Amino acid sequence: MQFVFGHFADERKEGVILMERIRSTEVGSHVGERIRVAGWLHSLRWLGSINFLILRDGWGLLQIVTEEEDDLEPLVSTHSGLESVIAIEGRVVTASQAPGGIELHAPQIEVISAVTETPPLVLSKRQLKAAPATQLDHAVVANRHPSRRAVFRLSGVAMAAFRGCLLSQGFTEIQSPKIVAAATESGANVFALDYFGRPAYLSQSPQLYKQIMVGVFERVFEVGPAFRAEPHDTARHLNEFVSLDVEMGFIEDHFTVMPVLQAVMLAVSSAWREHCGPELTELEIRLPRMPEQIPSLHFSEAKELIYERYGVDGRSESDLSPQDERWLGEWAWQEYESDFLFVTGYPTRKRAFYTAPDPLRPEYSNSFDLLFRGMELVSGGQRLHRYEDYLAVLNERGLPAEPFVDYLQAFRYGMPPHGGFAIGLERLVEQLTGIQSIKLAALFPRDLNRLTP
Amino acid sequence: MQFVFGHFADERKEGVILMERIRSTEVGSHVGERIRVAGWLHSLRWLGSINFLILRDGWGLLQIVTEEEDDLEPLVSTHSGLESVIAIEGRVVTASQAPGGIELHAPQIEVISAVTETPPLVLSKRQLKAAPATQLDHAVVANRHPSRRAVFRLSGVAMAAFRGCLLSQGFTEIQSPKIVAAATESGANVFALDYFGRPAYLSQSPQLYKQIMVGVFERVFEVGPAFRAEPHDTARHLNEFVSLDVEMGFIEDHFTVMPVLQAVMLAVSSAWREHCGPELTELEIRLPRMPEQIPSLHFSEAKELIYERYGVDGRSESDLSPQDERWLGEWAWQEYESDFLFVTGYPTRKRAFYTAPDPLRPEYSNSFDLLFRGMELVSGGQRLHRYEDYLAVLNERGLPAEPFVDYLQAFRYGMPPHGGFAIGLERLVEQLTGIQSIKLAALFPRDLNRLTP
Repeated sequence: MQFVFGHFADERKEGVILMERIRSTEVGSHVGERIRVAGWLHSLRWLGSINFLILRDGWGLLQIVTEEEDDLEPLVSTHSGLESVIAIEGRVVTASQAPGGIELHAPQIEVISAVTETPPLVLSKRQLKAAPATQLDHAVVANRHPSRRAVFRLSGVAMAAFRGCLLSQGFTEIQSPKIVAAATESGANVFALDYFGRPAYLSQSPQLYKQIMVGVFERVFEVGPAFRAEPHDTARHLNEFVSLDVEMGFIEDHFTVMPVLQAVMLAVSSAWREHCGPELTELEIRLPRMPEQIPSLHFSEAKELIYERYGVDGRSESDLSPQDERWLGEWAWQEYESDFLFVTGYPTRKRAFYTAPDPLRPEYSNSFDLLFRGMELVSGGQRLHRYEDYLAVLNERGLPAEPFVDYLQAFRYGMPPHGGFAIGLERLVEQLTGIQSIKLAALFPRDLNRLTP
Repeated sequence: MQFVFGHFADERKEGVILMERIRSTEVGSHVGERIRVAGWLHSLRWLGSINFLILRDGWGLLQIVTEEEDDLEPLVSTHSGLESVIAIEGRVVTASQAPGGIELHAPQIEVISAVTETPPLVLSKRQLKAAPATQLDHAVVANRHPSRRAVFRLSGVAMAAFRGCLLSQGFTEIQSPKIVAAATESGANVFALDYFGRPAYLSQSPQLYKQIMVGVFERVFEVGPAFRAEPHDTARHLNEFVSLDVEMGFIEDHFTVMPVLQAVMLAVSSAWREHCGPELTELEIRLPRMPEQIPSLHFSEAKELIYERYGVDGRSESDLSPQDERWLGEWAWQEYESDFLFVTGYPTRKRAFYTAPDPLRPEYSNSFDLLFRGMELVSGGQRLHRYEDYLAVLNERGLPAEPFVDYLQAFRYGMPPHGGFAIGLERLVEQLTGIQSIKLAALFPRDLNRLTP
């Protein structure tokens, strides 16, 4: 369905009535007809007696074939090279050897924007060969490659599915401020800015605001940027990322929250299956597999399992290493054919101050991580909800209460037991696609050395 | 539909099987049954021989009535005042005098979180009487009031409708970086930050990125924060706001973009009608009226009309004043019964450098504003798409090309005619609800003097 389509001003002036433009993905239903398509000159093989041109539009690729060199004259006369924007009228024919099984014959080409310089990256090959750093430096152009575009289409569909799933469960979408007066999680790793002469920071997470908003709507979610000034330049670090945040009230404990997360992951996966067929093929992606209930291990069970199965004794440690996570992912796959695994009950002292302890074993917390293919994808849990508990924990951890005075109002004036989670969008897409770096899952990543494009 | 519900840990331990909790908005379909609800103690009228309690949950209000003072004993023994979080089991009866026509009798109250201090604002009255500044200072609590909550529910539904409308037209959602190396629109009014020792800025608009992404997806949208360091403390200024951005390729000119905006406004309005009945009633809102086609005036016609109709000659001016906008809104209402009016063709020199001029009258631009009830709500138009045009306009305006070097790559390597628009979410909701200040349309506004809550 195409809502509007523009022809171009020059033609309008001449009073020409143009055909409606067809998207590349819709051409298959017009076999035998003469149609009009438009997009970018993705590749050109000029052999003389037969010539192949591939047009890329916002949705896919389409092959155009002609034996008449004269048909290419509009490109020649305007010096139009690859990435030129063109419109083509032609006849749709089935052709088993063409990509998608159809191609356009007898093309009439019109140049809309001629590109006369060679793009900084080769976009016309099946694979984008440039090194990751080169792709990122030239993201403005590199993101046009079908393999890069597929990554970002998967991101877009994931956001839509995340929201759709939550809206259908009575959640309300919020947008919390990103300029804040105090660091959320800790004083380190925060970007500082000058706010009309006062110190301010970029929000590391909407955590405090989404909890406050449980007092308003009970169930809220947010999709927005989060900022971490971590001075590490690794394949796992992004200094700005997209956080998919959820928070809900009137829970029993973290085990009430986990099914909501499972429903979200199922919705996202289903949406990819339904809407991203070409992208899954392009990137050779296997969709996540998930049993009816995602398996779940307590942190202490996880450490025990690693000791028994892999002979590494980390039972006195208070966190899981990346290797631990990979082993646990392996175990979940072998035992349950599950790409996902919940680990619950992380040691309380390693979690943020707002984390609710397990009432029976307060050294462990009512928290969880969701591992996806052996890597932490989501963190969540039950939060403290009593004012006195917050005062006590801030005091215990040597944190000043003053920066949290507004936040604490929420608890002072009545909050139910509540909890939630946050999914890192780039991490999700990185793990799904298996790309080499989380930076390649961001449209225009921000890292230690990269502030452009 | 309730996806999950938690009872509470203490009860679970005792092995009590609790009733499923019902939302306040679903109680009407349980007349005669004994049910369980949960939420906040919104108000309490303790008269002795008859006592009225109003419970507020995430969706609405419910009245509970009892003639037995003993039923209130759980509140008394825990010193639970207003805003305490409670659960109530009771029998649903119809009662024409009750809000919503139903109430709960024979209540059994359980206190979940006792509030023993008086909240800083009176939430229990029909109207929130506190001054706007007080409401904003105490937004953590004030946002719980039904009138405030209604505003933010309208925002949430608007975002969902905006996205739904665009997704159905083949748009892809993007998230562009908010930390940027250069100011988008102009050097002034930008928040500066220290990015690992380098100067950086907060994005004033995703304009440049959404244009770049037209080269990838043709049609993109984004919902995200935008930042303007305008040092003005007025009812029209917010220093951080939510921008609903759209950009699309292969347009004829700005007249191809305007129907997309109209479709978005129609979708938002329809969603409010469908999903926000209680909120519209609460805030006494009249939904926007829109004829089949929103009326449209050229800028020069608008100035002419104001001269003829109101006797004020601004025909040599290059912008519309707030009074002009109000007059034009009045005219659109009287002539077309339309709350919306397009004004097109603003003088080119008053628009941003990327604005495409009208090819026939280059002193006017292929731009538009959408006025909503006599105030500018949306700005949009066709953008330049040729590399040479950008170089020329930057030179002409005395702007350096260097900060735009990545952006310009998009045009250097092929862009179609394109255009788009940006809607300010808070402005939309402000104009819809008629509240006194745009600040009251933001959950936790950021203004010249306000960095918290």
